[in-house]
Amino acid sequence: MQNFYYDIPTKVAFGKGEIQKLPEFVKEFGTKVLIVYGGGSIKRTGLYDTVVNLFDENGISHVELSGVEPNPRVTTVKKGVDLCKEHDVQVILPIGGGSTIDCAKVIAAAYYYDGEPWDLVCDFSQAKETLPLISVLTLAATGSEMDLFAVISNEETKDKIGIGSSLVYPKYSILDPEYTYSVPRYQTAAGTADIMAHIFEVYFCGITGTFMQDRIMEALLKTCVHYGPIACEEPENYDARANLMWTSSWAINGMISCGKSAAWPIHAMEHQLSAYYDVTHGHGLAILIPVWMKHILNDETVDIFVNYGINVFGIDQTLDKMEIAQQAITKTKGVFDAMGLTDTLRSIGIENQDNFEVMAEKALGDGLDDYIVPLTKEDIISIYKECF
Amino acid sequence: MQNFYYDIPTKVAFGKGEIQKLPEFVKEFGTKVLIVYGGGSIKRTGLYDTVVNLFDENGISHVELSGVEPNPRVTTVKKGVDLCKEHDVQVILPIGGGSTIDCAKVIAAAYYYDGEPWDLVCDFSQAKETLPLISVLTLAATGSEMDLFAVISNEETKDKIGIGSSLVYPKYSILDPEYTYSVPRYQTAAGTADIMAHIFEVYFCGITGTFMQDRIMEALLKTCVHYGPIACEEPENYDARANLMWTSSWAINGMISCGKSAAWPIHAMEHQLSAYYDVTHGHGLAILIPVWMKHILNDETVDIFVNYGINVFGIDQTLDKMEIAQQAITKTKGVFDAMGLTDTLRSIGIENQDNFEVMAEKALGDGLDDYIVPLTKEDIISIYKECF
Repeated sequence: MQNFYYDIPTKVAFGKGEIQKLPEFVKEFGTKVLIVYGGGSIKRTGLYDTVVNLFDENGISHVELSGVEPNPRVTTVKKGVDLCKEHDVQVILPIGGGSTIDCAKVIAAAYYYDGEPWDLVCDFSQAKETLPLISVLTLAATGSEMDLFAVISNEETKDKIGIGSSLVYPKYSILDPEYTYSVPRYQTAAGTADIMAHIFEVYFCGITGTFMQDRIMEALLKTCVHYGPIACEEPENYDARANLMWTSSWAINGMISCGKSAAWPIHAMEHQLSAYYDVTHGHGLAILIPVWMKHILNDETVDIFVNYGINVFGIDQTLDKMEIAQQAITKTKGVFDAMGLTDTLRSIGIENQDNFEVMAEKALGDGLDDYIVPLTKEDIISIYKECF
Repeated sequence: MQNFYYDIPTKVAFGKGEIQKLPEFVKEFGTKVLIVYGGGSIKRTGLYDTVVNLFDENGISHVELSGVEPNPRVTTVKKGVDLCKEHDVQVILPIGGGSTIDCAKVIAAAYYYDGEPWDLVCDFSQAKETLPLISVLTLAATGSEMDLFAVISNEETKDKIGIGSSLVYPKYSILDPEYTYSVPRYQTAAGTADIMAHIFEVYFCGITGTFMQDRIMEALLKTCVHYGPIACEEPENYDARANLMWTSSWAINGMISCGKSAAWPIHAMEHQLSAYYDVTHGHGLAILIPVWMKHILNDETVDIFVNYGINVFGIDQTLDKMEIAQQAITKTKGVFDAMGLTDTLRSIGIENQDNFEVMAEKALGDGLDDYIVPLTKEDIISIYKECF
């Protein structure tokens, strides 16, 4: 087990009706709020009205940034910063999924940055201070509600960059599983694949001596495997939504990676898909994962697959190791299939392989040559092609 | 899943050599420290000298409270408070196991309390402020290094009271598994039983809908079952010590009980054993657990035992449910046996059953009649007798 420093400061109010605590949380930091949201589903579900009424009743004023994109753009960040400056905003309140929260995180930091937000994204170590951020989560997927990451796209340069800084942990997150009842089947499936991908990145990193963390990752994966398909079939199943929501937070808040270090190859490859084709992140991951797994399965990694197969899927442990590993990969794909996620890049609108080479080159930049199974540019192109 | 509020503020520096960060952590709060420790093993191992040298090099002054008892006494708390007041202490630094940290927590709160420390312990809601506390852990067991609990004894009244308050979370904890290399086999075994007991209390509480937390508890239990006996045989096995140490923190820091509520019957029964006979807490728990498990096994609880047996011990899931449950209990006792923990109260020096009735009555005070399998005074007496 590697040495580590553990510090997850986000406080979470979890469960039905916890939105009532929002004014108390906000007032710890101020009374002027920027509400950040996406396409308006929070208006259809009534959540928007609930929040605005709570603010009105409690003397909290607000301005709004709506229309945050599924892959949030730095141009939107800039609009948010301008709103904060114009209205002396004290607290940023993203209401939505990971895209909305990610966008809010970068607004919170760019507010204090003298320069273009994209320059800050390109070197986030320049961030020294942030506006406090409180999130209200409506989609179980990215874990942004309890982590220090954000991913921002630049549509001009086709770049999609992930940043990480302990400055951007939300101060509070309100997690009410009922707010995810209205998430469509497709987004539920993609979100579950995203949670699983976060765990796979760490689980398959190759650092040993972390028995406890490995077993916890299997616990989280079991939860996804069990409840992902159920949530797709029964969108108002509280236990399914609640377990997926809490799992989304723990898949990436830093706990499972204590004592490990990971290169995140699946995300490196997927970020290029999203940057070039604006595909749904979780779906892109679900297409890549089984192919990537086959690619990294070898004599050195087979024991990780064996643990995964036995402990997550209950595969017969008396089988040959490689057989267990193969079955585990098949069963992984089976979970994505069961949730209705198609398994080719063509099926999500990618019509040719023209960009694979430049995408592979950009993906490589994330240090994948240092991975437990080093990935070359050719490897990545071949994975993209097999996914095609 | 019940609603919950999650807030674990303790920051952890984990791994070999992390003690070097201590001066930086201390200086966040001040430069006058009360070092709290037990019987002097930290002097034999050199940890004491390391800390004092770090303090000398960094302009940090200290006073000392040594001799904290295995079941720490309120008289020792009082000594600590007097030292803090006399020397204007700004930070409390327990170095040791749960007893030492528990004692330090109550000192931290009693410092600001106008009255006898025992009166504060009897109604801890009177605590309004605490001195900051940084812990250096040398025994994986109670989880006090990352939780909000403390247990204090009053030798005059034979009372042993557990308190809980978010005020007493350590600000930082330094967890270096190498500091547990010198823990004797018996204390290693008792500590592991203590960790397991913390998980059992929550796992068997009867609240459903917490699939994810249940699987995580199984992950933690697997770690104890796997590494407890190894650490007893190989005291300098880093991975065993590291995994047990980190598991001790997560067994009770509040994470696994999110969405659950538990009555803690095993601890209620054991606290009376310790209060009356000063037995080693973890050993008392290990004697009680298999008997308690048999007592609560019925048609309503059998499914919990089935999950436990299959997921922790890999028991054949095609067996009859009751058979799986019985095997799971036998295997649990087998883990304690493998670590050398004897299985009767007589074997730990309890010579007669004279106090069982008054002990049962005191244990009941902790609300056990409201448990998933309600426990009456007669039930508890019969459990004590079966353990005798």
